[in-house]
Amino acid sequence: MARSLAVVVLAAGAGTRMKSSVPKVLHKLAGWPMLRHVVEAAARLKPARIVGVVPPSGDAIAAAFAPHPVAVQRQPRGTGDALRAALPALKDHQGPVIAIFGDAPLFTTATLRRLIAACARRGAAVGVLGFRPADPAPYGRLFVEGGRLQRIVEARDCTAEQRRNGFCNSGVMCIDGAKLAALMAGLRNDNAKREYYLTDLVELAVAAGDLAVAVEGDAAEFMGINTRQELAVAEAALQARLRAAALAGGATLADPASVWFAADTRLGRDVTVGPNVRFGPGVRVAANVEIKAFCDLEGCSIASGAIVGPFARIRPGSSVGRDVHIGNFVELKATTMDRGAKANHLAYLGDGRVGAGSNVGAGTIFVNYDGYGKYRTDVGAGAFIGSNSALVAPVKVGRGANVTAGSVVTEDVPAGAVAFGRARQATKKGRAAALRAKLKARAAEAKRARKD
Amino acid sequence: MARSLAVVVLAAGAGTRMKSSVPKVLHKLAGWPMLRHVVEAAARLKPARIVGVVPPSGDAIAAAFAPHPVAVQRQPRGTGDALRAALPALKDHQGPVIAIFGDAPLFTTATLRRLIAACARRGAAVGVLGFRPADPAPYGRLFVEGGRLQRIVEARDCTAEQRRNGFCNSGVMCIDGAKLAALMAGLRNDNAKREYYLTDLVELAVAAGDLAVAVEGDAAEFMGINTRQELAVAEAALQARLRAAALAGGATLADPASVWFAADTRLGRDVTVGPNVRFGPGVRVAANVEIKAFCDLEGCSIASGAIVGPFARIRPGSSVGRDVHIGNFVELKATTMDRGAKANHLAYLGDGRVGAGSNVGAGTIFVNYDGYGKYRTDVGAGAFIGSNSALVAPVKVGRGANVTAGSVVTEDVPAGAVAFGRARQATKKGRAAALRAKLKARAAEAKRARKD
Amino acid sequence: MARSLAVVVLAAGAGTRMKSSVPKVLHKLAGWPMLRHVVEAAARLKPARIVGVVPPSGDAIAAAFAPHPVAVQRQPRGTGDALRAALPALKDHQGPVIAIFGDAPLFTTATLRRLIAACARRGAAVGVLGFRPADPAPYGRLFVEGGRLQRIVEARDCTAEQRRNGFCNSGVMCIDGAKLAALMAGLRNDNAKREYYLTDLVELAVAAGDLAVAVEGDAAEFMGINTRQELAVAEAALQARLRAAALAGGATLADPASVWFAADTRLGRDVTVGPNVRFGPGVRVAANVEIKAFCDLEGCSIASGAIVGPFARIRPGSSVGRDVHIGNFVELKATTMDRGAKANHLAYLGDGRVGAGSNVGAGTIFVNYDGYGKYRTDVGAGAFIGSNSALVAPVKVGRGANVTAGSVVTEDVPAGAVAFGRARQATKKGRAAALRAKLKARAAEAKRARKD
Repeated sequence: MARSLAVVVLAAGAGTRMKSSVPKVLHKLAGWPMLRHVVEAAARLKPARIVGVVPPSGDAIAAAFAPHPVAVQRQPRGTGDALRAALPALKDHQGPVIAIFGDAPLFTTATLRRLIAACARRGAAVGVLGFRPADPAPYGRLFVEGGRLQRIVEARDCTAEQRRNGFCNSGVMCIDGAKLAALMAGLRNDNAKREYYLTDLVELAVAAGDLAVAVEGDAAEFMGINTRQELAVAEAALQARLRAAALAGGATLADPASVWFAADTRLGRDVTVGPNVRFGPGVRVAANVEIKAFCDLEGCSIASGAIVGPFARIRPGSSVGRDVHIGNFVELKATTMDRGAKANHLAYLGDGRVGAGSNVGAGTIFVNYDGYGKYRTDVGAGAFIGSNSALVAPVKVGRGANVTAGSVVTEDVPAGAVAFGRARQATKKGRAAALRAKLKARAAEAKRARKD
Repeated sequence: MARSLAVVVLAAGAGTRMKSSVPKVLHKLAGWPMLRHVVEAAARLKPARIVGVVPPSGDAIAAAFAPHPVAVQRQPRGTGDALRAALPALKDHQGPVIAIFGDAPLFTTATLRRLIAACARRGAAVGVLGFRPADPAPYGRLFVEGGRLQRIVEARDCTAEQRRNGFCNSGVMCIDGAKLAALMAGLRNDNAKREYYLTDLVELAVAAGDLAVAVEGDAAEFMGINTRQELAVAEAALQARLRAAALAGGATLADPASVWFAADTRLGRDVTVGPNVRFGPGVRVAANVEIKAFCDLEGCSIASGAIVGPFARIRPGSSVGRDVHIGNFVELKATTMDRGAKANHLAYLGDGRVGAGSNVGAGTIFVNYDGYGKYRTDVGAGAFIGSNSALVAPVKVGRGANVTAGSVVTEDVPAGAVAFGRARQATKKGRAAALRAKLKARAAEAKRARKD
Repeated sequence: MARSLAVVVLAAGAGTRMKSSVPKVLHKLAGWPMLRHVVEAAARLKPARIVGVVPPSGDAIAAAFAPHPVAVQRQPRGTGDALRAALPALKDHQGPVIAIFGDAPLFTTATLRRLIAACARRGAAVGVLGFRPADPAPYGRLFVEGGRLQRIVEARDCTAEQRRNGFCNSGVMCIDGAKLAALMAGLRNDNAKREYYLTDLVELAVAAGDLAVAVEGDAAEFMGINTRQELAVAEAALQARLRAAALAGGATLADPASVWFAADTRLGRDVTVGPNVRFGPGVRVAANVEIKAFCDLEGCSIASGAIVGPFARIRPGSSVGRDVHIGNFVELKATTMDRGAKANHLAYLGDGRVGAGSNVGAGTIFVNYDGYGKYRTDVGAGAFIGSNSALVAPVKVGRGANVTAGSVVTEDVPAGAVAFGRARQATKKGRAAALRAKLKARAAEAKRARKD
């Protein structure tokens, strides 16, 4: 089945109700552009081709389709016209063609498979996914007689009698590729909006003596997104799925509703996630990891036995090794922490590596940026970086070296060396009173000045 | 209509069920004292006067009414007595008088307008807002016959038959100012509680041959607040309104339920707000701003193109310019960031300015306080403040100057200068082993000492 | 009643559906191991003994039962066999014996009391807590005739007729201790699973001419936990109870659903808790405390008038005194802040004390760890610790002393002294251009190198 399948993703709609300068299908859900959910669901069918249909000046959308090719719908002349734009890209294709919409990101691959299988089993020229929403008013209706889909009637064209039919059109369609061109040629725009409707393919197929079928799916999968409110509802639906999957896989989420996953987050068994944790795209967490409350992780891997947070931020390109501890108010950016390394308090570790078992003290900064370039900091295994130190990259601290607290390290520290980069303390006995008198007078003066 | 309107806000109730030393009407909702929601809803009617009625020793409440005048209800002798306290302040007022309660913060200006309009249209002496709650048991009931409100019966005085009436008294009343004094003069306290009830005005008006009317409003608007639980429910209701408005205005809220708005938060179009963001009062966010997860903003403005968070805190008096980046664990307090300036990691910038395009390194502190006075730090445009620096205010860093990492800057740095305020690194080769042996011995000694 | 009571907690189940290497009854709820909720609910009955039944190699579970003794169930041969394992520990016990399950942590002490009282009042040999769940399908059913419990039929053994009975077995049982041994001796494993069922005690008692009774409880209390999803549901149920209790006690929770309590959190009156606050075990908060958004507190006490957060973390062993301020990105670990002390911005204060009225500047680190031992930092009253300082423990700063900003303090500072531990600033006029040219060239070079 899969080899001869083609999928056309219609993504040329305007989306004006989003009130956004970002194309609707690029708004994000679970860390991905909406469109990617649709394309990934299609890709899991392993089709021979996926073709996107984009509007003119839809470069950003086309980029989101990459590496799949796109066709441009020049003018907004209806869904039938949109699919027609994809026909050149479907040249010589013989198997079934799925048409899906880029703004309906909740349907599952399993549901698409059921549609394709039903069409194949029954030899249908056209198959349509239908659903029964709580409120059918805005949807076109599917009319089935004797197991055969007869026609789709748009909501606005329904008679009062027809409105009583709650079986609605999801927009997802499967068309026999061998008959596609002939059917498409029959589309007419002799309607109020002067548009070509994909839904007319059903009547055209029936008129040609071919079979059309309807397959019912779960209403929750067919939500289309037109507003920010609907975007938020879809996000909640995706999150509910991702949370349930995490729990089923053996993770503990103290408060599932306060954990936000990306579509591709992977959690191992016995991972514990505290309340208020956000996973951006690209996070892999191994087994037996504890992620405490208030963490933000993205594009990183966390190895077994690690303890992260609370209030930790781990940014893309970071790798947290086995049994590593990352504590509060610590930021990792493109930094590797080797086995058993620790950075427990207030630190920025960017573009670096911390060797196995090393300890990075509170307040440490890897000074990776000088205003022009970014450089690496490399701390060897078993090193000790004293608190409130600044390691000015590019710089290396060797294995087993010690950097004393409060140091600015601008030169490499050899293995086994001790580096100081701080001033010696000078204590002036009994001088606080005079200093305070001076500060007090200055404050009084400043206050007077403000009044003037 | 508006010019001749007066509004009396009754805020003299005790609120003992709050179990609080704070007056009930000053408990906060969406960043404002409860009372302010009521006063603002009234003020949008543009009335000629707003008068508050407060209890004795209600100075804090009176302050919350400012600049509106208040009258003091000397003893808790009922709602009618409370309105009577306001009569001197209404002297010579001829138009309608609205009486509303300070502990019912959810009603909308539109609903008040409907009540006023109905009274005007029908020439009513008294108008009452009614509602139909899920559980009418605790409420007084409105009895309407032939479109005329006949009387209000307190819950405890209802017969079994009367209890079947689900149309309840919201407490909000509109009284013809010309008849107010005469009606009020008729109030009696010959009841079990020896109190004067405002609700008796209905029967008094009817007895005088005048018309009383009831106008139905949405039950959700008439919730009164008596407990912390009800306070939380009201907060949730307000937040739901504010979130819906933000979405409708073209903002994306990844998880609307985890974004907390103040009543006056303003978001531009294409603002993206991550999960877990709190807006305190006085925040204005321009279009195309991204506020990432876990931020806390209050009393600040964020210009277009800025990126804030995650884990950023922006405090009152701060101004974040166009395309500014504020990163994790950064606090801004009364600080201005000019166009394109950046402070991406762990910093406290207080009482300062950062010029356009300047970069503030990780761990930077604006040392604004010396124990007695607070002073300003001014960083010019295109400057570079190295990581882990402390700028001791009052201090200026000129345009295009560089402060090297780890410096303590106590004197002004001229434009184009480089400032160092750190010790030179000294590296002792091979000395880590001895240092570690010493530290180890000290730890062992300390352990022994604890055991003794 | 209480003196002669014994409670057996059955905690030998496998819990494989948790997909966890942690025993099911040790998974956490509201900061406690699940089992502790059961044991504490039992302990509030003040029984003469509590006995746990654990599986072989159940050392961790036995530890959670401490100081109560445990018995080991050698093989998983049913609930009856589990109770039998406890019989030796109940030797000579005459009063009632309660059998409860370690994976049902939601029942309340009050409900257990009702069961015990009913058994005592009616002279029952066996009493069972029943409930009426929304979906009775998975539960055994209680059959009561004329007020007497006749038998319990397992779900799988019910006839279609019996399935219509929605009165279900909670598993909680109360047995007359004087009859326990005789009843237990009657248990047989002649069933499909070859197990001994505790539920058979009912029929055995009835057969012996004794009375068995059923007492109905609230279905919400009898949830058993078998999966992570159910663990999350139970957590939500416990949190709802704890939040309601906090509100009823006179605390304000801006968004109750975003505050996570431990079972033992104690909040005073007029405590205000912002959104997104997590309380780990062992937190006591006095009256009139404000805990702002995004805080994480555990094992600490907060005195009256303190202001904490946002973004503060207070770890075990910390004590926050009256009117203390702890601000954003501040971590306290085993540190005492005396009355009126302040640490308002980015700081790590570990193993220390800050005296009354002292001010700890932004970016301050108590350097408590040297890689081998942990040491204390002691700051006297009225001291001023300048921003970005590192106090290297063990170290004392005396009363009224000043540490200047950016200092590394390695030696004690006497009372009234001023300590400097920083380099003097050197400013090179006009040198930024040359420095920047150099940095720019380096960046270009690095870029070239990456391309090669």
